[in-house]
Amino acid sequence: MLPEWTYQKCPEISAVDRQAAIARQAQLTKPTGALGRLEQLAIELAGLQATEQPRAARAPMIIFAGDHGIVAQGVSAYPQAVTIAMMANFAAGGAAISVLARELGSSLEVVDAGTLAQEEMPGVVTDKPRHGTRDFSVEPALEPAELAFAVEAGQRAVVRAEAGRPDVLIFGEMGIGNTTTSAAIAAGLLGVSAEEIAGSGTGIDAAGRAHKARVIDAAIARHGIARTSPENILCAVGGLEIAAICGAIIAAAQRRIPVLIDGFIVSVAALAAVRMNPSCQPFLLPSHQSAEQGHRLVLRALNVQPLISLDLRLGEGSGAAIALPLVRLACSLHNDMATFAQANVPDRPA
Amino acid sequence: MLPEWTYQKCPEISAVDRQAAIARQAQLTKPTGALGRLEQLAIELAGLQATEQPRAARAPMIIFAGDHGIVAQGVSAYPQAVTIAMMANFAAGGAAISVLARELGSSLEVVDAGTLAQEEMPGVVTDKPRHGTRDFSVEPALEPAELAFAVEAGQRAVVRAEAGRPDVLIFGEMGIGNTTTSAAIAAGLLGVSAEEIAGSGTGIDAAGRAHKARVIDAAIARHGIARTSPENILCAVGGLEIAAICGAIIAAAQRRIPVLIDGFIVSVAALAAVRMNPSCQPFLLPSHQSAEQGHRLVLRALNVQPLISLDLRLGEGSGAAIALPLVRLACSLHNDMATFAQANVPDRPA
Repeated sequence: MLPEWTYQKCPEISAVDRQAAIARQAQLTKPTGALGRLEQLAIELAGLQATEQPRAARAPMIIFAGDHGIVAQGVSAYPQAVTIAMMANFAAGGAAISVLARELGSSLEVVDAGTLAQEEMPGVVTDKPRHGTRDFSVEPALEPAELAFAVEAGQRAVVRAEAGRPDVLIFGEMGIGNTTTSAAIAAGLLGVSAEEIAGSGTGIDAAGRAHKARVIDAAIARHGIARTSPENILCAVGGLEIAAICGAIIAAAQRRIPVLIDGFIVSVAALAAVRMNPSCQPFLLPSHQSAEQGHRLVLRALNVQPLISLDLRLGEGSGAAIALPLVRLACSLHNDMATFAQANVPDRPA
Repeated sequence: MLPEWTYQKCPEISAVDRQAAIARQAQLTKPTGALGRLEQLAIELAGLQATEQPRAARAPMIIFAGDHGIVAQGVSAYPQAVTIAMMANFAAGGAAISVLARELGSSLEVVDAGTLAQEEMPGVVTDKPRHGTRDFSVEPALEPAELAFAVEAGQRAVVRAEAGRPDVLIFGEMGIGNTTTSAAIAAGLLGVSAEEIAGSGTGIDAAGRAHKARVIDAAIARHGIARTSPENILCAVGGLEIAAICGAIIAAAQRRIPVLIDGFIVSVAALAAVRMNPSCQPFLLPSHQSAEQGHRLVLRALNVQPLISLDLRLGEGSGAAIALPLVRLACSLHNDMATFAQANVPDRPA
């Protein structure tokens, strides 16, 4: 149903570089294992990037925005107009991810992958098959051709970023209603009830969350998508920005570019990507554990253990951006520390 | 027993600036609370620094090194000569903290607060009352005058750093044997058995750890220091670098400079500081949860909740340095994000 490239295999981890990185870590002037997960991170990155010197210096950020027909069912705390207003805020430099990109020296591209915006906006790349998804409580959110378009929009964004020779990529999202869409996708992929996975999003209360879960469960039953294919599930209850991120993750992994996986929504896109093309899984790097309820379940399914857990629940790629310095420091420590021999420090007795 | 300044009160938190920071966070273009602990961090920092614009840009790092007589009892996995060799490695730029300081744009000062080094070393400030502590399994580690000297050495380092107008300070330590010393101090201060608090340090095995715990419990009984004063405990089983960090923390707080608290050893120094001068407590900023067993207990006693937990157990101030970017990003987000009004983004309906 999707373009053929979606299913093409990603490159293998370089066993030679991974082994060399393990050997180097054991020679650095510190007790074995004393840098904990940062050692592991550098080792994995060396294998993924197939290099002796893992790097996360160049880390472009791309935000995909989309609107969601399901918002008509009263599932969000914020009005739908916020999606477009926040796109403008990203481009103008006032949003959290804009501040983070500046501080971290990353480029920031904003892609309108499917908002209701009727006109092109300055500083935004428009690449969408339609304006918002359909309300999945009454009909399928997307036609197959619309889904394919969105997945390819993700690939196009990666191809644009590739020119800057990125070491890693960060994908973010914006879309009022997209925790509902993501929870529906995750519930379908994992075969769990919405109660287990639907969170409070931008800040709905307990009654709102219960309503959101009912809407999702009803849609999954209506479309008959529990534990069906990711393509099926994305058509039935998907989002355009989520489909774009799914395509972007696969396209990045196929180019040997690891991706720092942000919070709940990006993780759901990653789960769909892994179900479509399991060979992209090793290229998913951890970032944070979101406060959004379903994130833990999705990360477990992805076999990704987060680096930080700071009760973030903003989206936009902000959690991945906040974790980026840890990945960068892991690389610097790996590449730049002296060995016992170089520093003439006695190692522990054998 | 200690110089009078040690007990002088630290400045109060600015309630006005703290309140202004809370109000500002509610206006930034994100759902309320969506930046989780980073919001809290910016708010606390605004109150501590008494400013509308909390900052962690200038973050000098100071490492205090010392040797420990208790090493004669076979409590460490590494030979004692490593303390001096690592001081040279810090100064030469090859150690983990050297790499981190470079990457983070921080100055790095190395203070020999009490190693066995007989001569001054290039790139190291020598400021010590004696060469190493006495073996506390047979006699008190320090005379009161030696303890006072070390505490003042900490203050002197802060005075030197003050010239650069630091926003926050990071203190680190190096000293073969100092997890044993720290565990003994913590066991004394908290009135717990060594078994609860002694960890594997640079990498001793289970039998080594049991031996270490026995050595500590015997020393606490011999000196009769359980739940006595921090001054008493530091003289009996203390370390010179630990006493210096204790003085440095108090001196920094008295100058309204918050301190990012590193791992087990620095946290124990902080606990002694808080016991001597409780008014310094608010100036202790969290960094990481170390893999060293006793750290959790000490952080709980300090009422400090770590930002990251990455199985680090290196010391040198490395955990605090690795957490520094998170504090910096918290400040940037607080200071530089647009408000709903500025960005013309609809806030949630009342």
